Amino acid sequence: MALNIFYKKDCTNHATYVIIITIALLKRQVCAMENNSKKVPEVVIKRLPRYYRYLRELLNQDIRRISSNALSNMMNVTASQIRQDFNYFGEFGQQGYGYNVKYLIDEIGNILGLNDGDTMIIVGAGNLGRALANHNSFIKRGFKLVGIFDNDNRIVGSSIHGVRVRPDMEIEDFVRENKVDIAILTLPRAAVHDMANRLVSCGIKGILNFSYSELDVPDSVPVENVHLSDTLMTLSYRIKQQKDNEQDNTEDDGQ
Amino acid sequence: MALNIFYKKDCTNHATYVIIITIALLKRQVCAMENNSKKVPEVVIKRLPRYYRYLRELLNQDIRRISSNALSNMMNVTASQIRQDFNYFGEFGQQGYGYNVKYLIDEIGNILGLNDGDTMIIVGAGNLGRALANHNSFIKRGFKLVGIFDNDNRIVGSSIHGVRVRPDMEIEDFVRENKVDIAILTLPRAAVHDMANRLVSCGIKGILNFSYSELDVPDSVPVENVHLSDTLMTLSYRIKQQKDNEQDNTEDDGQ
Repeated sequence: MALNIFYKKDCTNHATYVIIITIALLKRQVCAMENNSKKVPEVVIKRLPRYYRYLRELLNQDIRRISSNALSNMMNVTASQIRQDFNYFGEFGQQGYGYNVKYLIDEIGNILGLNDGDTMIIVGAGNLGRALANHNSFIKRGFKLVGIFDNDNRIVGSSIHGVRVRPDMEIEDFVRENKVDIAILTLPRAAVHDMANRLVSCGIKGILNFSYSELDVPDSVPVENVHLSDTLMTLSYRIKQQKDNEQDNTEDDGQ
Repeated sequence: MALNIFYKKDCTNHATYVIIITIALLKRQVCAMENNSKKVPEVVIKRLPRYYRYLRELLNQDIRRISSNALSNMMNVTASQIRQDFNYFGEFGQQGYGYNVKYLIDEIGNILGLNDGDTMIIVGAGNLGRALANHNSFIKRGFKLVGIFDNDNRIVGSSIHGVRVRPDMEIEDFVRENKVDIAILTLPRAAVHDMANRLVSCGIKGILNFSYSELDVPDSVPVENVHLSDTLMTLSYRIKQQKDNEQDNTEDDGQ
């Protein structure tokens, strides 16, 4: 019945026309929302560090130029996805010539602010704090560890990766004087909210939070949370899926 | 001109009808693609641990029932997103009554395989390995640390969080005998590929990889990579955006 209207009088063409126009307008609207707006989608932002990592790896292997297809195979992302992602930030490649790896690294590095030489402090010099202080990839990405703080007198005064551990009561003066950009929090949950407030009040620019609690700080101070157990739970999900699949296959074989 | 066709003869109603039908069919198709397929999208899987975390937090505060709106406000996700996500796994709530928190935790825990009591070993007893061995939230999620391995004789034989550090040459026998599910790798980059192969050959079910390198193991062994510097780069991006915004505002004020 619904199809009948296509054959009534000369509505057919009109109706088709209206549909085409409507779809075109919708499509244009979606494209405009996606690309023309300055706001880069969360998923794209999250992918940039991964691109950066892979491209650095290529440069280490002395690979200077790569096609979006080759990059796509390597990263397990479609080539059109890669082109779309890069389009948010301008034209990085030339049709048929592929991408210049070094140029791409520099551009993505710029977008990510890696060339700003952001300074960081670690608050909490336990095992995790120590592990992060020794994490070379932070330094390789252009970040500079300028201070480590703890409230345990047995640790204060010692050195980790060449950086002296200071008492946490010095933190406000230190952040102000050194214009510290980033604070990495590896504190127990009970202490983390108070410390976040203190850091915000003395002008910290961003927080990398390893504590279980989500922080309540002003929007002007971005926070990235690292929930290690979330990753473990995701892995657990995938293992369960794999076990279920294998069980299904075994049952199929038995029939 | 395009609008004119709406007023020609009695095409108006037909055209509108066709548009409504087309949109409805498109919408149904999208819904079918999204919900009827058994494959749960990556983004939904990634959100499950976060739901789990928030719901556990609610239960700790003795909150037994929550509406999708309240959960939405708390988690900064739209209520319709929450309903859509949960729909992948069946009906968790009752219209107007909200969700039973305890029931939801159990169900999501089941989906994530947290009730399977997965066993895990840590390979690499450096600072990061130690930090993870002491990470209580792993245990709270139902995972059981059964072994720690290292090749440094000065560490082998000592105990971390009540678990003895063993020499890494014992790893194959241990994984086989104890049917270990998960290996957490906190090894230097140079050692990680060889270790991953050894673990796969003795039947490990999944790997949580903290090493910089992406592993090349069979699809049947899921791997989750934790790239700590990716999170730091994302934070750097947000700080840069914030600085750019502030600069724009200052320039605007100055004009």
